[in-house]
Amino acid sequence: MSSDHRFEVQAQSLGFPLSSPIKIGGNYTPALRDGDLIYVSGQIPRIADSIAVVGAAGAEASFEQACFAAQISTLRALALVKQICGSLEAVLLVPRMSVFIRSALTFTQHSEVADAASDLLSAVLGPCSAHSRTSVGVLQLPKGATVELDFIFKVSAQRNSL
Amino acid sequence: MSSDHRFEVQAQSLGFPLSSPIKIGGNYTPALRDGDLIYVSGQIPRIADSIAVVGAAGAEASFEQACFAAQISTLRALALVKQICGSLEAVLLVPRMSVFIRSALTFTQHSEVADAASDLLSAVLGPCSAHSRTSVGVLQLPKGATVELDFIFKVSAQRNSL
Amino acid sequence: MSSDHRFEVQAQSLGFPLSSPIKIGGNYTPALRDGDLIYVSGQIPRIADSIAVVGAAGAEASFEQACFAAQISTLRALALVKQICGSLEAVLLVPRMSVFIRSALTFTQHSEVADAASDLLSAVLGPCSAHSRTSVGVLQLPKGATVELDFIFKVSAQRNSL
Repeated sequence: MSSDHRFEVQAQSLGFPLSSPIKIGGNYTPALRDGDLIYVSGQIPRIADSIAVVGAAGAEASFEQACFAAQISTLRALALVKQICGSLEAVLLVPRMSVFIRSALTFTQHSEVADAASDLLSAVLGPCSAHSRTSVGVLQLPKGATVELDFIFKVSAQRNSL
Repeated sequence: MSSDHRFEVQAQSLGFPLSSPIKIGGNYTPALRDGDLIYVSGQIPRIADSIAVVGAAGAEASFEQACFAAQISTLRALALVKQICGSLEAVLLVPRMSVFIRSALTFTQHSEVADAASDLLSAVLGPCSAHSRTSVGVLQLPKGATVELDFIFKVSAQRNSL
Repeated sequence: MSSDHRFEVQAQSLGFPLSSPIKIGGNYTPALRDGDLIYVSGQIPRIADSIAVVGAAGAEASFEQACFAAQISTLRALALVKQICGSLEAVLLVPRMSVFIRSALTFTQHSEVADAASDLLSAVLGPCSAHSRTSVGVLQLPKGATVELDFIFKVSAQRNSL
């Protein structure tokens, strides 16, 4: 089973629509390729026109909702990489994942929320999901979202055939 | 009109002095070139010896002041790149812009503040301003500044003639 | 004196055990090499099984404790690079250091805390410690830690002999 197929399976099980375009809210590029690196802009858990999870983790948003939000943000990043490369089989490595979690003052399970994103990367990309990671707890995020994730993906120079 | 000329026009219209050196507050390199990438350290809206805008966006600092702060930080970054390359015509791409906005608890217009920086990049660099972006809302920033921005610029291997 | 020797001297003077493995708390790679870059994941001031400094800088944690935490996080990063390269003599440059400091609402000495990390880098790596830097004040960090630092190191293609 290819990483593209595994991506579809994960997206369907999380209710993430594969057909809707990846909307962004600002004057920038959602994912920028420079040579064999793709810099993915900060992704909040937006599904079509609405933000799936808002509020501080540990207060308005539960731990489980924060994990779901991290998964949706990761699916968006993967969808953008697939759009650029044609196939997720092009991914070789994920040099950096940064996880910003809007946190209640007492919330300290940032690594555990980030694991939801890491586990999803691993389920889709297999051994090519190797990544470094930084997770921090912030006061606020755009549109009041619960999480925001950005990434650097390393992809093969040759486009993979589909 | 060259990007250097457009930079001067923007700097003048925002009251940013072109002659003053870019001061930093610590034991590090303000902008570090590694091959064709320039890593610009986090820039707060310092003009000469003072911080132009301090306080949390949405509380002590208005939305408009936060936007101005983002513009000043961006001008500082551009001035540093110009210092290293001789000319902003060397810039090919901006792989990453990270925007940290000191936020009131209820402030969620981070993307809109970041747009002020993105629009300025675009006004100066034109099509070479293509960039990925992440904006988050943080509790505090050095010296109480309202915003801090860091960047990775991609520049051409050859220095441009002036 | 080599950078490896200077690393040992600094580790000993800060009470950082050189023999204990670098534990991480999640499903990711603590330090990922891609070509001549090593991306070090966010390091909190963990010594063996416990977090050396927790709480917000300027409240539960003093300025001095925050500086110590930044030094321990930096030693962890250096230990990881040494593990990958065999020797810290392989380090050529540190393109990026990001410093996240859990802050009391009124704490604004982020640059000064980050200087503790920068000074340690310099003491160990000498002229190869040149780095860009971003320091921000965040609401919370994993496990309630006071600081978290991540890095990109540039290393020579050839492994140095020990």
